[in-house]
Amino acid sequence: MADTIFDRIIRREIPADIVYEDDAILAFRDIAPAAPVHVLFIPKKPIATLNDATDADAALIGKLVLAATRWAKAQGFADKGYRLVTNCNQDGGQTVFHIHVHLLAGRQMHWPPG
Amino acid sequence: MADTIFDRIIRREIPADIVYEDDAILAFRDIAPAAPVHVLFIPKKPIATLNDATDADAALIGKLVLAATRWAKAQGFADKGYRLVTNCNQDGGQTVFHIHVHLLAGRQMHWPPG
Repeated sequence: MADTIFDRIIRREIPADIVYEDDAILAFRDIAPAAPVHVLFIPKKPIATLNDATDADAALIGKLVLAATRWAKAQGFADKGYRLVTNCNQDGGQTVFHIHVHLLAGRQMHWPPG
Repeated sequence: MADTIFDRIIRREIPADIVYEDDAILAFRDIAPAAPVHVLFIPKKPIATLNDATDADAALIGKLVLAATRWAKAQGFADKGYRLVTNCNQDGGQTVFHIHVHLLAGRQMHWPPG
């Protein structure tokens, strides 16, 4: 698959405001925040879209979500609340073809979700 | 934890337009759809919020996401795209305290996501 800007962030070839990292996951602030807190959680494994994730990736996807919730708790806003969003392809509004979970917090999120 | 409307749907005590079920997961249409396709994927295990999911739930959370993507493929709109949303607590806009993944599709989803 094609290299994306996220692969370049993982390799530290371009800067990002990284807030969390472990062996499988990286998280950094969105450069165009849609809420006071807006962080992207990505697997280091390059999976282009949710459609490309296989059953073998289930544990990784679960870890990705739980890394976001754990970070929300560590930051102190988990009880107040947050929203997780993942876009897939054109109708979903996906712009970078490397799976990412948007964590949005710090304001009341509205409905519908876009 | 308190019984929710989703527990009652799982037990078939109240009706729902169920579109998918396996041993761990149930999916049914949202009664107030925010897109032409709007389905909720829930674990049968009652976990109140994302904050209550433990590391032991990682595989279940991953399965929940992949069940949504698999259903999107089966329905034929996965390539066109979709959005997955999970709300946690007040700021996230969570209204039923049993974890659920919103799958929205069938129209262009906008940004910001609520």
